[in-house]
This record gives sequence, structure tokens and C-alpha cells, in this order.
Amino acid sequence: MGKVRVTKNLSILLLLVCSLALNVLFILKRVRVFDDESSSSDELSWSRRPAREAERVAAISCSGHGRAFIDSSLVVDEEEEEEGPVCECNSCYAGSHCQNFLPSCPVNAKSGDPLFLEPFWMENAESSAMMVAGWHRMSYTFKDSGYMSKQLKARLRQMHAIVGNAVTEGRYIIFGSGSTQLINAAVHALSSHNSYSPSLVVPRIPYYSLYKQQTEFFQEVEYKFEDDASLWMNDSATNNLIEIVTSPNNPDGQLNHARLQHPNDKAIYDRFYYWSHFTAISSPADDDIMLFSLSKFIGHAGTRFGWAVVKDETVFTRMSRYLTLNTVGVSHESQLRALRLMKVIIQGKEEETMFDFGYKTMRNRWEKLNDIVSISKRFSLQNIEFQYCNFFHKIRAPSPAFAWLKCLRKEEKDCHAVLAAANIMGCRGSTYGAEDKFVRLSLVGTQDDFDHLLHQVKILISEEKPNRFDSDHIPCDLFSFL
Amino acid sequence: MGKVRVTKNLSILLLLVCSLALNVLFILKRVRVFDDESSSSDELSWSRRPAREAERVAAISCSGHGRAFIDSSLVVDEEEEEEGPVCECNSCYAGSHCQNFLPSCPVNAKSGDPLFLEPFWMENAESSAMMVAGWHRMSYTFKDSGYMSKQLKARLRQMHAIVGNAVTEGRYIIFGSGSTQLINAAVHALSSHNSYSPSLVVPRIPYYSLYKQQTEFFQEVEYKFEDDASLWMNDSATNNLIEIVTSPNNPDGQLNHARLQHPNDKAIYDRFYYWSHFTAISSPADDDIMLFSLSKFIGHAGTRFGWAVVKDETVFTRMSRYLTLNTVGVSHESQLRALRLMKVIIQGKEEETMFDFGYKTMRNRWEKLNDIVSISKRFSLQNIEFQYCNFFHKIRAPSPAFAWLKCLRKEEKDCHAVLAAANIMGCRGSTYGAEDKFVRLSLVGTQDDFDHLLHQVKILISEEKPNRFDSDHIPCDLFSFL
Repeated sequence: MGKVRVTKNLSILLLLVCSLALNVLFILKRVRVFDDESSSSDELSWSRRPAREAERVAAISCSGHGRAFIDSSLVVDEEEEEEGPVCECNSCYAGSHCQNFLPSCPVNAKSGDPLFLEPFWMENAESSAMMVAGWHRMSYTFKDSGYMSKQLKARLRQMHAIVGNAVTEGRYIIFGSGSTQLINAAVHALSSHNSYSPSLVVPRIPYYSLYKQQTEFFQEVEYKFEDDASLWMNDSATNNLIEIVTSPNNPDGQLNHARLQHPNDKAIYDRFYYWSHFTAISSPADDDIMLFSLSKFIGHAGTRFGWAVVKDETVFTRMSRYLTLNTVGVSHESQLRALRLMKVIIQGKEEETMFDFGYKTMRNRWEKLNDIVSISKRFSLQNIEFQYCNFFHKIRAPSPAFAWLKCLRKEEKDCHAVLAAANIMGCRGSTYGAEDKFVRLSLVGTQDDFDHLLHQVKILISEEKPNRFDSDHIPCDLFSFL
Repeated sequence: MGKVRVTKNLSILLLLVCSLALNVLFILKRVRVFDDESSSSDELSWSRRPAREAERVAAISCSGHGRAFIDSSLVVDEEEEEEGPVCECNSCYAGSHCQNFLPSCPVNAKSGDPLFLEPFWMENAESSAMMVAGWHRMSYTFKDSGYMSKQLKARLRQMHAIVGNAVTEGRYIIFGSGSTQLINAAVHALSSHNSYSPSLVVPRIPYYSLYKQQTEFFQEVEYKFEDDASLWMNDSATNNLIEIVTSPNNPDGQLNHARLQHPNDKAIYDRFYYWSHFTAISSPADDDIMLFSLSKFIGHAGTRFGWAVVKDETVFTRMSRYLTLNTVGVSHESQLRALRLMKVIIQGKEEETMFDFGYKTMRNRWEKLNDIVSISKRFSLQNIEFQYCNFFHKIRAPSPAFAWLKCLRKEEKDCHAVLAAANIMGCRGSTYGAEDKFVRLSLVGTQDDFDHLLHQVKILISEEKPNRFDSDHIPCDLFSFL
């Protein structure tokens, strides 16, 4: 009986010791003597509120057809605050959670908004998010590096070296508020600075329409716009020619080269699409002035960040002066974001890199569209070859940013109207200095935009009947009798 | 004896029960049955890494004479990563933690960097920080509101209503990449669009030097720069005059009004300094075109964000077109930041609002500088009156952004050189179209900058001796015999 009592007392004591030990352990953990993964998040102080807020907004479901942004929740008065952030739906989707497809809504194939990369960034939320402190870089300038982040410059050079799409060693790099501003700056820097003999800015047809609008709008004393580089090829009398070369080209994806060959002629290379999503990287470009943008490279059009790679010091200095007097450099928040996102891409430890994701998406889209259009006799697409890519180390399929669709029937001169009748909204050929038998269809939008486009093109082509007046089958001399 | 044992057993049992209960409590807390402030931070997922990173950088000590920024830590290769973020020191401070003052270093009184507000934002870290998701607003545009955030527009109107410094009801608001771009846009929008009779852009002396540089640099077909509005006051032959009115003025803080009165004359009001930090708010400004900037208002110069308040629809449309073709709107990150910071100011639940902090800081600086300079016979400062302020509801002391210092001795024509010899670097009067007897000294920099300035001015004035050749005491005719 006494033995039982002793054993019982002993086990109670043992239990007490264990329990007390556990108490001590818990207490030590709470006062953070051990520093493990889960407890150290308790260390967060001022950053916890914004972090939570961002996660709360990101968690809002928009049915995969939209997203909620944090700046729709940053409201002040009480009524609005209760409402909170709301879904912003893809084109042709509606409802509080973007749950409703609007079937009769026109296909958005106009916008060059590069949303095809949005899913990649959603997938890589942790590495791509950034916390900006309220006092982050309030100055006009960076310490010892003027308006440009040295770190970002270094990452851009590293990026070009990895992709192999541009020589940057021994070249100047200059930032702009989007590449649009850089085009203006480059045209200004190259122009003759002589109002009696202004420079002529000449792109090659079909060209990105903004060039014309910009150059005509900002028409300074020193330059004006002319429509077509080929007209000036043999004109040795005019020495102040600035050719804008978009390569790969917007709208048709061709790898253009400068046509003007006179030693006095100057070229600005728009290299916005010279990334492995859109084209084979055959060799590093080494043009005098090359322009790049975040928009078509990683999809962040709204960040308004572009950069130029420039050989000549005088051109660099003149461009810098333009950018300083125009906007006093580039937003520090944009530079910070570009840096954060470059880091994600360069480290590329994800299962699928942005390069893989970008190329696969664009290739699949082109393949699908091409499969459908190739059976049509009414429409055709531009021809793009399979090519060896030095970045992927393999032959790659075409994957252009835009389809340059042509209406083949002679009487269908307004191809835009033909497509619009089928509820497909593209951009008319004349916008690019070309015939209206062409239409540009954007392939860089959301997956919803593309699926919708494909669906409507399928219907259009499936309804295709041989045209009664198909002029291709009527010999020319027959016309004279009609 | 038996009683003692029973009591002992009872207390052991009681201890055991308590200990077990405590353990149960700890366990329940760990599995989040209770949801208190500290445990719920464990809910953070993708935002935890960037939040931690930001706090780690913010915790780096720079001895109160500098700060570390997150983008110096966003580095890639191994060597640099080990180094981590570093302190960026205020002018004249050095060392890995900015611990060393460099006494012979020249005073930085040139820069208009509005760092006087940095301590306020550091103090309000939680409310002013923002987390930006990797997929935040990748589009060129906002849903249904073009390049501009509707939310931000609403907050700006609300802010003007609170401060009472501008009428915005029924007015257009337009965003720019800093006010610098808005000046260009406004000049472009108002110019005659007639190259045979270009508009003339005329400020009033002393004027902010950027106006001249900008207008001359971007000299379009339609406008050119002329130096002084007063020269044109009676010139009725010239009808295309655009007057730039800075009010309060940079450099001298005066509340200027347009001088040109012809009905065809147009005015652009630069209202960058019309905030209660710098001047009394007498009534809401209601000019045709008013420009504001984040920089001088809340101190975020690097964000490159400004806005214009415009009465006329045509002017608004022309300015919008300029901004679209120039930079395709304003960085979404800048807009997000502006919105976040506006919210902090509008809610103003802090013990000390930004308005209190801004005014007190600037008033104290002016008071101290003025006290010293007022005993000098060699230097003077501009005169600024005490005035009733409708925002603070009281008479307020002067608190200008810049000191417009004058060298009084006739032979000291180069006041900049006089100050430079005392290790004080300001901006010479001729930069502002004025005489070089004037120098602009910036008062908006860091507290270190100001303290250093005050110290050097004190020395300069304490060493002041009556000048042997003080020409003020020599009658004019005496000179002829010398």
C-alpha cells in the first residue's frame, strides 16, 4: 500500500517536472530566446499593417477573370472604406467577382497592354513584392549617381548579358519615363539643331504609329516627320535624316535593319520586342542607340520605365539634358520596382522562369491563331520563320507580339470593318502607314482576351464561303466588259 | 505528520494543475484559437519576406545623420549580398554609420531637396509604408479613368479643400511626372500654335531658373523665352504673352500676382510653395492654371509627381495630349505612393500632423537665421510679414523655403564668392535673373544642413568688422578725388 502511494507520488512529481519544463519552454519561446521561422514574424512592427492590407486585397477572388488592386482600397471617408477594394475585370467580364462573361462584347485585340505576363507575377508573389517605407528616397537624386540608380543600371547590364540581346559593355545607359520619352529624347539629341535645315525623322512602313504623332506634336525648330524611309534611300542631297528602326517590328514582327546608308544618316533602334518571348535572339544587337522598355519585356507598362543603350558620349549627354529638363529624371518608385523585378528574373530560381513562361504563352497563342487562319482563303497572317535562338539554345517557333492580318479579297479594302462586323476590334493598317487591307491584332493581352479573339476568328472563318465576286478568280481583261 | 504530507501532496497537485493549465493556454495560443495582435501576424504569407527585409534595412543605425535604403540591398551576386545595405549620409557626414562630421566640408545650401520633412515620415512609419504586389497595375491605364487614378484625384481635391489653398470644384485635374513636365505641358498648351508669331514666355525677376532653361531647350516652333514680364506690361502690340507667376516666389518667397493685364495674355501660376509650411493661406487660389507638386508639399521629390488644376477645357485637353505623347501618363507606383501619403495627411491622427511639423520646422529655421543676420550690417534677408493664416486660424510667423540673402557692401558685388569664402555654397542671384549681390540659401534641406549653415553664418557675421572701404559711408563726390 505504501509502495503504491510512493509510486503515485513519484509519477505526479514527474508529471509536474515535465509540465513545468514545458512551461519554461513556452515562456522562453514567447520572449524569443529561440528564433525560429514562425516566431520571428512577430518581430514585424511598422510593416505589418501594410503587409496585411496587401494580402487581404490579393486574397479577393475575381474568378480568374480580374484582380483587385490595393489602391482601390486606399479610401478615406467612412462610407467608401466599408465598401473596400473591388475586382477590376478583364474585358468582356463583369459582376462583383468578374463571374459573368458578356458574349456579345467586342473582342479587345487593339490594346498593346502586355498582360500575358500577369499570371507569372501572381505565381511569384513572394519574390516580386516590395515594401516601400514612407521616407524611401525622398531626394531628387541618388547619392553619387544623379537621377539613376547605380544598382539598377548594373542589373540591366547583367540582364542583357544573360539574354545576349544587346552589347552594353562600354556603352552609356540612360533611363526614361517609359520608352516613349526616350524616343523624344533620342530624336532631339540627333536632330541638326539648325532651323534652316531641319532634320527629317523617317520610319519604314509599316511603323509604330506613335512615332508620327510624337514627332509631329513635339515638332521643334530642328526636326519634322516624313512618312517612309525608302523614299529617301537615294537622296544624297538631304543629309539630316534620322531613321527609326523597330526590330522586331511593331506591327509585323520583322527583324528590320536601317535602310539609309549615308554616313551622315542616323538610326534609332527601337528594340522593345527584342526579347526571347517574341523572337529568336540571334546575336547581341550593337546599334548606336538602342531603346528598351519594361513594358514589353516583363509586362509592367504602368511603371513607365525604359532605358537607352548609347554608344556616343555627345548623344548621351544631349539625351540626359533632355530628360532632366523634361521630367527631372525617372520616379524612384519605378526604379525600385524595376530593380526588384529584375532581381526575380536574374535569380530565376522558380520552376518556370519568366523567359520560359513568356515564350510558351506567346508561341501557343500564335500556333493556335495560325492553325485557324491558315485554312482560310479570305485572311492571311504574316510569315515568320522558325529560327535558332542563342538564348534557349534551340530552334524556336514563331511567337510575335502582334498578328498582322491581311484581308485577301480585293473588294475587302477595309479589313478593319470586316473584322469589326465579326465583333473583333483591331487597329487599321493606315495607322501604321500601310494599306487598310491590313489589321493589327494584339496577342499580348490577357488569356481571356486571346481566348475570346480565337473564338470569334474561328466563327468568322468557319462561316467563310467562296465570295461570288472573288476577284482573284476573274482575269483582269474580263473586268473591262463588266 | 499525516496532515503535513496531505498538505504537501495537495500543493504539488495544485501546482501541477496550474502548470498544465498554463500549457494548455500556450498550446491553444500557438494553434491560434485566440486571435490576438501578435499571433495573427503569422497569417502573413508572401508579404512576410519583403516586410522583414524593409524593417531590417530601416533598423540600420546611421547615427541620425543618414539612412539606409532598401534598394542598396537589392543586389544579386554573392559578394555584394554579404555587404548588404549601407548608410547614405547627410552632406558633410561620413563613416559606415555616418558617425563622423567633416568640419571643413562646404555647407550645402544650394539644393532644394525638401528633406526637412523626412523625420516626419520616419516617425509615421506604419501609416506611410506601402506593400506593392508584383502584379500591381501592370496595364498602361486605370480601369475607366485613363492614365490617372480616380482615387488620387479625389484625395487631391479633398486636400485642397482641407488646406483651403485652391479652388478645385468644377476644375480639371491633370497629373504630371513632376511639376517640371507640367510647366512644359502648360506652356505648350497656351502657346499660339503659329510659327510666324510665336508666343513669348515671360516670368518676373527674380524667377525660378528652370523656366528659362526649359523654355529655351524645348523651344518649339510656337514659343520662345523673354526675360522679364515688366518690360512687356505696356506693349499692346504683342498679344501672345505667357507669364509664369511663382507665388510664393522661388527664390524670395513673395506672393506675386500676374503683371500682364491684356485680355489676350495668359498666366501659369506655379503654386508649389502655396502650402502652410511656407506661407499664410489667405484664401483659396483660383487662377486659370495652377501647378502643384508632391516635392515641396510633402517632401517626396524623387517620386516625380505633380498636378495641375485647370479651368479651361481646351487647355486641359491640350495639356493631356502633351503628357500622353511625352510619357504616356505618370508611373503607377508614383500615383500609388502619392495616394498612400495623402491618406496619412488627410486622416492626420498623429499627435503632430505634417502641417504642424512642416510649419514649426520652417518657422524655427527662419527665426534662427533671421536673428543672426539681423545684427549684421554686411548682409540682409528679404522681408516677410507676419500674416493671418486661414488654415491654422492664427497669425503666423514667416517660414519661407529659401533665404534671399543680399550682400550690402557696394564693393561686394559677387555675394556668392563672399559666402563661398566662408564655406557656404548657395545659388548666385544671376541664376534667377537678378543681380549677383543676391544669393539663394536653401532652408528646406536636412536639419544637419541647416545647423551647419547656421553655424557658418554665425562665424561669418561674428567676424564682421566695419569695412575700411565701406562705400556706404563715403559720399559720392569724394570718389572722384581718389
